[in-house]
Amino acid sequence: MADQNPLLSDRDVAFQLYEVGDALGLCRLPAFAEHGQETFDLFLRSARGLARGLLFPAYRAMDEAPPVFVDGRVRVHPSMRAIWSQMAELGVLGATRPYAVGGQQLPRTVAIVAEAYLMAGNLGAYGYAGLTTGAAHLIEAFGSEWLRREFMRRMYSGEWTGTMALTEPQAGSSLGDITTRATPADDGSYRVQGSKIFISGGDHDIADNVVHMTLARLPGAPPGVKGISLVAVPRRRLAADGGLVDNDVATAGMIHKIGWKGLPSLVMSFGERGDCHGWLVGEPHQGLAYMFQMMNEARIMVGVNGIATASVAYHEAVRYARERRQGRLPGARDPRAPQVPIVEHADVRRMLLRQKAIVEGGLALLVQVARYSDVAEHDPDAAARQRAQRLLDLLTPVAKSFPAERGFEANALALQVHGGYGYSSEYLPEAWLRDQKLNSIHEGTTGIHGLDLLGRRVFADGAFLALADEFKAAVADARTVALPRVWFDQFELAVGTIAELTVELARRGQAGEAEFMVRHSADYLDLFSTVVVTWQWLRQATVAARALQAANAEDRSFYEGKLCAAQYWFATELPRIDHLVRLCREGEDSYARMRPEWF
Amino acid sequence: MADQNPLLSDRDVAFQLYEVGDALGLCRLPAFAEHGQETFDLFLRSARGLARGLLFPAYRAMDEAPPVFVDGRVRVHPSMRAIWSQMAELGVLGATRPYAVGGQQLPRTVAIVAEAYLMAGNLGAYGYAGLTTGAAHLIEAFGSEWLRREFMRRMYSGEWTGTMALTEPQAGSSLGDITTRATPADDGSYRVQGSKIFISGGDHDIADNVVHMTLARLPGAPPGVKGISLVAVPRRRLAADGGLVDNDVATAGMIHKIGWKGLPSLVMSFGERGDCHGWLVGEPHQGLAYMFQMMNEARIMVGVNGIATASVAYHEAVRYARERRQGRLPGARDPRAPQVPIVEHADVRRMLLRQKAIVEGGLALLVQVARYSDVAEHDPDAAARQRAQRLLDLLTPVAKSFPAERGFEANALALQVHGGYGYSSEYLPEAWLRDQKLNSIHEGTTGIHGLDLLGRRVFADGAFLALADEFKAAVADARTVALPRVWFDQFELAVGTIAELTVELARRGQAGEAEFMVRHSADYLDLFSTVVVTWQWLRQATVAARALQAANAEDRSFYEGKLCAAQYWFATELPRIDHLVRLCREGEDSYARMRPEWF
Repeated sequence: MADQNPLLSDRDVAFQLYEVGDALGLCRLPAFAEHGQETFDLFLRSARGLARGLLFPAYRAMDEAPPVFVDGRVRVHPSMRAIWSQMAELGVLGATRPYAVGGQQLPRTVAIVAEAYLMAGNLGAYGYAGLTTGAAHLIEAFGSEWLRREFMRRMYSGEWTGTMALTEPQAGSSLGDITTRATPADDGSYRVQGSKIFISGGDHDIADNVVHMTLARLPGAPPGVKGISLVAVPRRRLAADGGLVDNDVATAGMIHKIGWKGLPSLVMSFGERGDCHGWLVGEPHQGLAYMFQMMNEARIMVGVNGIATASVAYHEAVRYARERRQGRLPGARDPRAPQVPIVEHADVRRMLLRQKAIVEGGLALLVQVARYSDVAEHDPDAAARQRAQRLLDLLTPVAKSFPAERGFEANALALQVHGGYGYSSEYLPEAWLRDQKLNSIHEGTTGIHGLDLLGRRVFADGAFLALADEFKAAVADARTVALPRVWFDQFELAVGTIAELTVELARRGQAGEAEFMVRHSADYLDLFSTVVVTWQWLRQATVAARALQAANAEDRSFYEGKLCAAQYWFATELPRIDHLVRLCREGEDSYARMRPEWF
Repeated sequence: MADQNPLLSDRDVAFQLYEVGDALGLCRLPAFAEHGQETFDLFLRSARGLARGLLFPAYRAMDEAPPVFVDGRVRVHPSMRAIWSQMAELGVLGATRPYAVGGQQLPRTVAIVAEAYLMAGNLGAYGYAGLTTGAAHLIEAFGSEWLRREFMRRMYSGEWTGTMALTEPQAGSSLGDITTRATPADDGSYRVQGSKIFISGGDHDIADNVVHMTLARLPGAPPGVKGISLVAVPRRRLAADGGLVDNDVATAGMIHKIGWKGLPSLVMSFGERGDCHGWLVGEPHQGLAYMFQMMNEARIMVGVNGIATASVAYHEAVRYARERRQGRLPGARDPRAPQVPIVEHADVRRMLLRQKAIVEGGLALLVQVARYSDVAEHDPDAAARQRAQRLLDLLTPVAKSFPAERGFEANALALQVHGGYGYSSEYLPEAWLRDQKLNSIHEGTTGIHGLDLLGRRVFADGAFLALADEFKAAVADARTVALPRVWFDQFELAVGTIAELTVELARRGQAGEAEFMVRHSADYLDLFSTVVVTWQWLRQATVAARALQAANAEDRSFYEGKLCAAQYWFATELPRIDHLVRLCREGEDSYARMRPEWF
């Protein structure tokens, strides 16, 4: 076990939570008053134990034997039953939920790191948990007492699972175009009819029932996004005697995903016999607003997916590079000298350091964002809640997309470090590369998030100013330790540049040039993300520089690695933004003027 | 068939060969005197017909049913037999070889484009052909009369196939460390003993025999690369009666590659019973020098693989984007208005135009490089040959790596354009993404090519100057048409910057700072490639701008697309180099000083 892949670095997790992230500071909030490092660490230890002991050992087998769809039902990998019950028993499903609903009331800051271990161990296997928690939380927040008692409780306990049922064949990114119908019935429920696609975990054989949180239209609903309602549709409904009876929910087909093989992606058909009962959650036509709770949670989850998947591959690449011997150093002339481990080659170290910078920069960002989420939900002070919510909203597209895009790059580098072996399915990096690719697509493509950031979120009241204050605070703290002065100058200049650019683009938008404003949304997302992650590297470098002198030998190595990665990021990534800013500002128009027939 | 994927754009192929590339000018060389547009087009038409009619239709099935390894032998997909015999019949194997050896004596310039269709149709299926030609050409160039008569002839005709057998478990990038032995026997042949890995096409059931062009050491050979000899080792050897008898070559295992599924990658074991006969090719200890002929050819092939694989995916993405309807344009307020094809969304057009810029910029480069290769081999004028050889040598790392690295990015974008469908194996983009990933690894990793370029090739006598002259000629021609002035300025500045940087790095190397000199070889390869491809876009834009006015409607669309792609490249890619130049010049040292234990 000594050389087993750690999935995430425990040392880095402690650093992110306790040295950089001040997770213990959250215990000052009444919601977390009963928590402390002991309970945090207990949950982390349990999660990483489960991830290393159960999820990861089953990963390769689950990747090789995806779910099967036979006689209208889905059978998933047999390992999945034990994994599901262990995750439920550990309390993963209700980790952040209140004691009142059977949860552990842990900060999300801690929970996402614990979940990252599970995801890194086996992304598809964890998937059921994320979906079930998100679905149950929708009912907790907006559902009736009856739904909370009969559905939510069973979901948080793991007796039932949950899904999000949004997409239809003609309505993926464009949810306003869904056509699934929900018609009121005499008994207070609704009759649901329609077809959904890409429903992850829509059917399986690991628990008794599945609740689909379904977007549908009520009769007479206005067109577009204003006419969408949220309906809870179980595969089997409760009968009068408390048993479960068929609810006319059919699995119509299975999509053969290229990764996440533990988790089936399905085509679901509701109400083929006209007997599919659903229960309205909240008010009619408010479904999309409710669903945004789950979608925003899911977007952070996707970010954690991305970093977790890059992390496990990074650790595999580091281990391989330390063990695999090939070639000699430049200038070595004796062909009989022993070959060196490839980690000795500068270009291999470049590939590893780039992965480290992406993985640990991304994890720092996610811990930060989770902390905003905790404060936004639980701070007794309304102003603090509002400020945190603004920051959370502003950073969500970055927290979702950066791990997906750069994580994919990191996963490709992990494969590359393995050379020809990396191209074979005897080694795992190729599987993680496949897993990763979904993250730029689900829960809104990267393109959608670019538009969301530049078309909306960056202009939300006070959001950008709040972020600029965070940047300033980080610089002020960094100035108290021994870090290169050029970093502060470069970072402050970058922040100023983005602020100016954003104002300029807002002006364009107000002047009616909507197309110009968002034309380079992809570049804007890239440059914005780069600065945000630079901020996270500045924060990490500050802590590392401060701790370095008094550290023991092992910690010194850790902090030196942090400072190297920060240096890499400042030198290699931050300077890229000047060019991207120019493209946004000048509105370079090659693809804007490109016509479909010119391709 | 109307909407079948074209694999490559025929219009673009004609443009690259006849409008930009002056392929017909090659017919002035005596070797190609019997050729003209008619014979070129005949070969192109046959190859594309075969690619579209036979190779591409078998692609999905071959991807889904990879070779099987049973009882020590390999069985490949049954479609492969017909594909192999048709490729042989078309004369693909000897396309560029002299009439004297049964070839068609076509320019490589034309042949690589024809091959690109085959690769785009089915990369693994084409693979046998590239390997067999390369192996036979080694014998043609360096082998004895007997080997040419008995081996080469059968290989060019497709009766036997060929491989390159270089890599061993402990010797991949570091060929100097191979240990396979070849011991002289009384009969003039050698007894070969050793193990090779990653041998593509090392065994199959599509032809009678396989000849392994094997690197081995003779008794008393000096250590390292100076003691490597080249030996031809057939799976079955010729008996006295002209029949074939077992030659003690065993297939020891199969590697499960993640792409190129039509072509097995094998572990081969020579001489387990001490009865494996090989025949020395050329002189003892000169094997690596000979093998560089095949490796350099293979590197260009890998470049074509990369562009072909990006091309087929690009065309699929364009078609999908024109057909798939989703969402509405910014500012459209009526949710009942019909959805638009996603090609109408600017960010989708960005993803498509980026693919186009990579695919067509890369193809132009490969046509250019192939032309240098034709001139280097066939120009009666020694100075012209030498100059072309210098350019070919200098550009080989770029022609190999740019398509691999940027092609992978293009393939990922093609998948992304397909949204959730792209993540499923019901659609093909994911398969092409897998195929593509090998190209940054085989025939020298991208890292190796960066070192080769910056550590050696860019400093070869007269090479950089010859390239600078090519750049100048392109600018001079471009100045005669209506193109943005800023392009010339920007390009000339970039060329000057690279020249200065290269001199500066040479100075460092001469001063004994070898590590500093090559530290940023990856960045150098990137910036060098970017400028080289900019040159190719300048050439294409010049022709397009010149032809635009007098063109018919269809051609106008084509030329407008070229000018858009050129604009994109100048605006988006070329400006990236300033930052990369700075990293190289300043020798940014984050990963250089990173220690293995700090990861």
